[in-house]
Amino acid sequence: MRLSVPPEHVEIQLGERSYPIWIGSGLLGDPSNYLALPAAATALIVTNTTVAPLYAATLRAALAGRFREVHVLELPDGEAHKDWQTLNLIFDALLSHGSDRKTVLFALGGGVVGDMTGFAAASYMRGVPFVQVPTTLLAQVDSSVGGKTAINHPLGKNMIGAFYQPQLVLCDLATLATLPPRELSAGLAEIIKYGPIYDMDFLAWIESHIDALVAREPVALAHAVKRSCEIKAAVVGQDERETGLRAILNFGHTFGHAIESGLGYGEWLHGEAVGCGMVMAAHLSERLGGIDAAFVQRLTALIRRAGLPVVAPALGAERYLELMRIDKKSEAGEIRFVVLDKPGSAIMRGAPDAMVREVLAQCCAA
Amino acid sequence: MRLSVPPEHVEIQLGERSYPIWIGSGLLGDPSNYLALPAAATALIVTNTTVAPLYAATLRAALAGRFREVHVLELPDGEAHKDWQTLNLIFDALLSHGSDRKTVLFALGGGVVGDMTGFAAASYMRGVPFVQVPTTLLAQVDSSVGGKTAINHPLGKNMIGAFYQPQLVLCDLATLATLPPRELSAGLAEIIKYGPIYDMDFLAWIESHIDALVAREPVALAHAVKRSCEIKAAVVGQDERETGLRAILNFGHTFGHAIESGLGYGEWLHGEAVGCGMVMAAHLSERLGGIDAAFVQRLTALIRRAGLPVVAPALGAERYLELMRIDKKSEAGEIRFVVLDKPGSAIMRGAPDAMVREVLAQCCAA
Repeated sequence: MRLSVPPEHVEIQLGERSYPIWIGSGLLGDPSNYLALPAAATALIVTNTTVAPLYAATLRAALAGRFREVHVLELPDGEAHKDWQTLNLIFDALLSHGSDRKTVLFALGGGVVGDMTGFAAASYMRGVPFVQVPTTLLAQVDSSVGGKTAINHPLGKNMIGAFYQPQLVLCDLATLATLPPRELSAGLAEIIKYGPIYDMDFLAWIESHIDALVAREPVALAHAVKRSCEIKAAVVGQDERETGLRAILNFGHTFGHAIESGLGYGEWLHGEAVGCGMVMAAHLSERLGGIDAAFVQRLTALIRRAGLPVVAPALGAERYLELMRIDKKSEAGEIRFVVLDKPGSAIMRGAPDAMVREVLAQCCAA
Repeated sequence: MRLSVPPEHVEIQLGERSYPIWIGSGLLGDPSNYLALPAAATALIVTNTTVAPLYAATLRAALAGRFREVHVLELPDGEAHKDWQTLNLIFDALLSHGSDRKTVLFALGGGVVGDMTGFAAASYMRGVPFVQVPTTLLAQVDSSVGGKTAINHPLGKNMIGAFYQPQLVLCDLATLATLPPRELSAGLAEIIKYGPIYDMDFLAWIESHIDALVAREPVALAHAVKRSCEIKAAVVGQDERETGLRAILNFGHTFGHAIESGLGYGEWLHGEAVGCGMVMAAHLSERLGGIDAAFVQRLTALIRRAGLPVVAPALGAERYLELMRIDKKSEAGEIRFVVLDKPGSAIMRGAPDAMVREVLAQCCAA
């Protein structure tokens, strides 16, 4: 897939931790994109067994003039491997190659590769530089931007991690051509999210371009990625460590994480769980008085058109509540939800258990 | 042991990450020392099987009015357990108690407990507050101050960690009464270190009080802890993330880490390895022209009087070089040593392998 759109650029403004996101086609193979990185003798490309055959050689060739040694590490693919054992493969590789404090890590893959590589970069020798090269739509519009890194713990998703910013994010739109349809839909969930929480004009744009996005129309994808990154940059620039505003980016994620964890990581894709979780969070928002039933239906329809599930799995209300109580937003045992206080605006708040049970009864499969 | 010295105070100046170190006797059992901590529902005291019977109940009682729940976790004791498996016990405890983002961790013990608890605090939900309550001399004068946290990797010491500052450090001098003599000497190694790298007046003071320190004379210990913390605070305040100056605090550590790793963690105490490592680094400094033979002998004599080893184990020169090449200060395979460029001043630099071999031949047991 060759795109006619020229590369575009969004800056994450975080003082001395600021960095650019470049969005365009064919970026990862262009050596000029890596010239501004700090000097180092070695680089390690961390990728997975699915992405490696597609892009690792191209990235490696592009880095060959910049680093004396470029190593490639292939991790097993999937959320089920986002654990300490897999993370340790990165440390093993770094140490076995004699990597030093200046070694640059490249995360080539989706959200799982990005989250693990970022946490490895944050922790190896207490911090080495890293670059995000996201190859899934979800990673391009959400997980690669903003510096959240983590691994899962058997008792909760993303429970162990760090806020650690990359030096650079390269969103190569050409990589989206090889994305399986389920992964494309999963990315659309996070794109749709930015509408109801922040930008109703963007929501209207997505509604009128959802078929073009599902059909991977290049100009539509380029705009969706850029606008998503702009909104994420604006939110993260105000609240890097999620002491307040940033939490709105977790719209749909409290329910979504419970689905992922309850079914076992990897059963549903993260974006699928978030898509369905947004339907549930919209119903809760309606019960709390923030939006009306028509808006819930409008959002549900869009999520369905994106190819995402809108009916939650029947885990049982008690299990949902138990899983949501160990969400990172919980405080003193109270579950905190991101809900819409009006269309285009989100807040974090608690909700009565009885009301949450009603939402679960309404949204879960029989 | 009751001390007549009143509590003293050193501030670590790091902008919004600034915090106080309190030094005095009986501090850990005084509830008033915890009033300034951020509000939270739960606290977790992380300690080890040696320290827990001595102080855990006292600390827990002092925290009881401040937190709704105070849990205690006992880790196995020793550097050999400073690994992921033990770290994960902290995450398991936090999650099983439903700990949230505000939960405060207390590191009650020596450097191993402090380093692991600090890294757990840095990583749990991407960061929760923590307090250092060091109960060894080494932890009080070095490892609990400055925000370096880490675990070991089979291929290298402190390879995985974070810079993450505590909210508060409480150096309770009364805990030093229960310290085994080897541990006391290990702490003296880090105290002695501050002289040759930074403060020749302090070195002279230590020389004239070394017998009092070995005898645990309270006024002498109080001064040694306070002056060590002042020097560490001054250095860390200028270079929190060790981009330059802070590296001087690693005087003796490149050789020392090789000893620890080569013998197997826990065979020699960290402070013992650093003591012997300083002798080796002094010999290297002499060969590089920074100090004369008389100063090497003066430093060696003081280290010996502190009850520390001054002859290095015979690991073989190749093994030493191999181990030192994976030190965090190495760059592009070149070992970087902290050496004295004159008495009272240290720099980081490389050295010819042949010269390092001469030092090893001179310093190692036959």
